Amino acid sequence: MSILKTAIAQLDIIAGHPDINAAKIINEIKKAQEQGVDLIVFSEMAVPGYLLGDEWENESFVKDCYSYNSLIKDATQNITAIWGNIDIDVNQKAEDGRIRKFNAAFIARNGEYVGNGRVHKTLMPKYREFDDERHFYSLRKEAQDKLVDINELLMPYSIVFNGVERKLGLILCEDMWSDDYTINPIEILLNNGTDVIINLSCSPWTWRKNNKRHSVVRERIKNKPVYFIYANNIGIQNNGKNIFLFDGNSTIYNPDGTLRCAAADYAEVTIQTELFNEADNIAVSNPEINDLRDKEELYNGLIFGIRKFMENFSNKRVVIGLSGGIDSALSATLLTKALGPENVYAVNMPTQYNTNTTKNAALVLAKNLGIHYTTISIQKSYENTIEEIESAVFTRFDGSELKTKLALSGLNKENIQARDRGSRILAGVTSALGAVFVNNGNKTETAFGYATLYGDINGAIAPIADLYKTEVYELARYINQIDNIIPQTIFDIPASAELSAEQNVEEGKGDPILYPYHDKLVRSFVVFRFDPEDILRYYINGTLGKIILCEESIIDKYFPTPQAFIADLEHKWKLFKLSYFKRIQSPPIIAVSRRAFGFDLRESQNGVYYTKEYVRLKNEILKDN
Amino acid sequence: MSILKTAIAQLDIIAGHPDINAAKIINEIKKAQEQGVDLIVFSEMAVPGYLLGDEWENESFVKDCYSYNSLIKDATQNITAIWGNIDIDVNQKAEDGRIRKFNAAFIARNGEYVGNGRVHKTLMPKYREFDDERHFYSLRKEAQDKLVDINELLMPYSIVFNGVERKLGLILCEDMWSDDYTINPIEILLNNGTDVIINLSCSPWTWRKNNKRHSVVRERIKNKPVYFIYANNIGIQNNGKNIFLFDGNSTIYNPDGTLRCAAADYAEVTIQTELFNEADNIAVSNPEINDLRDKEELYNGLIFGIRKFMENFSNKRVVIGLSGGIDSALSATLLTKALGPENVYAVNMPTQYNTNTTKNAALVLAKNLGIHYTTISIQKSYENTIEEIESAVFTRFDGSELKTKLALSGLNKENIQARDRGSRILAGVTSALGAVFVNNGNKTETAFGYATLYGDINGAIAPIADLYKTEVYELARYINQIDNIIPQTIFDIPASAELSAEQNVEEGKGDPILYPYHDKLVRSFVVFRFDPEDILRYYINGTLGKIILCEESIIDKYFPTPQAFIADLEHKWKLFKLSYFKRIQSPPIIAVSRRAFGFDLRESQNGVYYTKEYVRLKNEILKDN
Repeated sequence: MSILKTAIAQLDIIAGHPDINAAKIINEIKKAQEQGVDLIVFSEMAVPGYLLGDEWENESFVKDCYSYNSLIKDATQNITAIWGNIDIDVNQKAEDGRIRKFNAAFIARNGEYVGNGRVHKTLMPKYREFDDERHFYSLRKEAQDKLVDINELLMPYSIVFNGVERKLGLILCEDMWSDDYTINPIEILLNNGTDVIINLSCSPWTWRKNNKRHSVVRERIKNKPVYFIYANNIGIQNNGKNIFLFDGNSTIYNPDGTLRCAAADYAEVTIQTELFNEADNIAVSNPEINDLRDKEELYNGLIFGIRKFMENFSNKRVVIGLSGGIDSALSATLLTKALGPENVYAVNMPTQYNTNTTKNAALVLAKNLGIHYTTISIQKSYENTIEEIESAVFTRFDGSELKTKLALSGLNKENIQARDRGSRILAGVTSALGAVFVNNGNKTETAFGYATLYGDINGAIAPIADLYKTEVYELARYINQIDNIIPQTIFDIPASAELSAEQNVEEGKGDPILYPYHDKLVRSFVVFRFDPEDILRYYINGTLGKIILCEESIIDKYFPTPQAFIADLEHKWKLFKLSYFKRIQSPPIIAVSRRAFGFDLRESQNGVYYTKEYVRLKNEILKDN
Repeated sequence: MSILKTAIAQLDIIAGHPDINAAKIINEIKKAQEQGVDLIVFSEMAVPGYLLGDEWENESFVKDCYSYNSLIKDATQNITAIWGNIDIDVNQKAEDGRIRKFNAAFIARNGEYVGNGRVHKTLMPKYREFDDERHFYSLRKEAQDKLVDINELLMPYSIVFNGVERKLGLILCEDMWSDDYTINPIEILLNNGTDVIINLSCSPWTWRKNNKRHSVVRERIKNKPVYFIYANNIGIQNNGKNIFLFDGNSTIYNPDGTLRCAAADYAEVTIQTELFNEADNIAVSNPEINDLRDKEELYNGLIFGIRKFMENFSNKRVVIGLSGGIDSALSATLLTKALGPENVYAVNMPTQYNTNTTKNAALVLAKNLGIHYTTISIQKSYENTIEEIESAVFTRFDGSELKTKLALSGLNKENIQARDRGSRILAGVTSALGAVFVNNGNKTETAFGYATLYGDINGAIAPIADLYKTEVYELARYINQIDNIIPQTIFDIPASAELSAEQNVEEGKGDPILYPYHDKLVRSFVVFRFDPEDILRYYINGTLGKIILCEESIIDKYFPTPQAFIADLEHKWKLFKLSYFKRIQSPPIIAVSRRAFGFDLRESQNGVYYTKEYVRLKNEILKDN
């Protein structure tokens, strides 16, 4: 028999808890042994978890993680196991002067390491949320230090399975995403005779990038067709400012690049197949990505993220401010789906500026969801705060006894309402319930700072802050298609903060943001990393709409003249840059897009700048108009 | 004549504003030309600034920064200039798929680049706040890609000055701090004939590390004595969560490692000397670091940091909550020294729990400082909030019509006071004044989460959050030695939050933190990166006091038994790890220590973990006692 019975254990990895993870791994190895599995593969950093911040500098912790290797190795009687963990070399320094650490794949069989038993990651991602290069020494640097060609270091492991020698080429996550690197680890392994590529990953999910991996695998093995095993974990991991979703989606590919078997999203499962068994060589396909499936993925991801996040707490109770607007409506619906209505406590906190339309909408939604609901008016406290601040008198003690009185502007008073809700009521109610409360902000607001610090910016988690406003509406509509739960009124009224008479939804008034265009503008700043110079150049060229995927006619409608367009561009760029002071103090965001605010997009408080070329383009267009 | 008239322009670099920086550089070049200077040196990344977050991904911005090179080059008639800027290679990809960027030193003379005119940084710091490897391609990788020995890439520039050929070896910052790397750029340059080493740095100040650089320079040139030029900028730069101080301290070293000339701290100055002029070969020495000088450096650094931070705002007004405790007393004093008493607005916000002792102390301090002062009682709002929350009734809309009432605990009520102060009064007063308000937290509180989110954790900047509580007292005492401004009462009373009757300072009650030991424990977690396993091992060995620099007798006094010691250790480790959720939402900290909370210490919300060895040690010691 020459088949190779292969399993991927797609585990729910708990970052920073090697005891739990190692126990799961050993348990899966035992189950696989009983089922006659030849080879079982786990994900990258399956023992320690991956997103640990600088906990990698805690040497005792790292050695503890490493120590689980021998327990796992000892469990590999009659089976070959491959798992991700930290490797250490206490005799060599890392570039921060600490012990040298490696992001490694370990391989053991019959209680012994195979060969030296470990492969170090070659390519170190260091964009977005990734900090591999910060913590781990790469195989690439090892090659340079040893004055050895890296081609000689990337060798497959030769193992005889059921009488036939197989050459297993082990790589870690980024090693397959080599397009932008000068080294291609898979190519090297294939040139060195590999006939099964095994990629251990700890790969966060990103919305709308699901099919990308399939095409990359096909590309990598097209010249030398071999089996390709992709092992990923599920769970959530965070680096404080961002919570990343790990969907698993572990896959075994046939040598022709078709999918042989694939694990379900967000499921802790072990999948099995018989490699080199032609009879079992059935290609499966992933569900097609259509518009509905696209929203479903997002919906499932957010629900999973919220549910997993709440597992950190002794109870699952959440408090939410329910205004009758779309953001809190979507947020409350997701919370209810994730945690059950018994765990959701909604508070409506009106002042004189909140209309019956929104108050009723909030109540109807709460009834539809079956959640706990209360109304606490903040009118009295709002008036009292204005009174207290405006009657305060500062005395200057420099001999002058100068008296200073305070006057609150309209904007000041709007912010007082938001802070009263976020810091006085929601935080107070939450602590009384022993709960956490959630932030309902969306990505567009977050980008422009259209939220009040210590007010609606508060919360323990921001579930929808990586969705643009138009995506918030889309997801809410998707939910209503399945289960008509969000009152139509909430879709019909203008988006509004309802903090003043100028924001009365019953009079059709709302936010000063033109979402269909500004959503795209935010994405161009955050994801495409565009500068105003780029925006203006495309505007002048007439290609802006096409490039940022916004209907050109909308742009022209909003901004009839170049003057108007430029005034808005500069206003929004300024808001985007200056409002970072709020993002510094904002809660963790569940990341779903190709770039989320937080650790994923590292910012500085450096004010506003325009390039020379921007200024030139601006002067040119304004001169002509 | 064979002298080499050399200048270092130590500029105040504004990160993200290449227009301002380039204009300053060109202006300094012109002044130097007029003074007959042969060689002028600027700091690393003098054009763009260094801490820009991911703005390096904004290609138009990066090209704009690069474009200033030709303007600077054109200004080098009759002079040689060396400056730091970004270099780009639009034809090669970086490992994130964007254009390839380098942290580079440029060299031009008589309007032309010397040779290829640029040197790329070899060593990429990626610990603490540094993210060089994230953004820049290293000379080390270039060597690997080109299959060239790095020794052949690090060559000095040969330039004839006043008839004599000099070989200038250019490096950037980390290239001199090579102890933990496998490559030593200075050694390579010296082997390749360099007779002047020129290090362009953008090096943040760290308290108590000032003499380290001198000894490193001496070590690097001891086998081949050459002049060593260290050019650093001044200013502040930030990455959101941390504000770093750049003290300058640019220095020219003689070949014997003595200081030939050095620029003053935090001064925008150009220093000059004649290299190779034996008559001018006078060694100067830096001021000795004694205890007073040690505090003076910290004091000057914080004052500078506050002042520079406030330059970002249209006015310099700051608001501060003044409780009569030591933290706000120190903070108010620093603000007053930095910004002038006319810009400081202090608010005392008592409830029933605040004693006359602290209220009077706050008033006396305000008088001593000559600042604006007012009192706003929060008693009424505090009572109203309790009333409103406790009278709220949640109704469950699942058909059960279940009613839920809320009850606030003592701790809940303490937090209500803190949030009322931070989010209702201080934020409101601040917005009415068009000011910013400051956070008064110290590092020990920050570590243990001994502060209320949306309460005393609020603020636009945290000036003393990188000082342990005992350092807060020390710095306050230092200030009083110079100018007896902080009332003695504030030193005499216990440290206390005054949020309940259990924290009455007049009864000698205060915080549940044993600062003389816990300050050291925090440092061991944050700076030494110790695990509870390490602490417990040293405790058992009897070396803990020596290793964490805490009097052994204090530890024994606080914890008479191993049980008591371990209970405290686990409690504090748990607080340290779990309170990270507050730090995620806390304001920017001025970094002064070897490790500050923020971007300098990257954390994850991963709960609490104890290593196997910790558990073993604990069981062993508890079994024996």
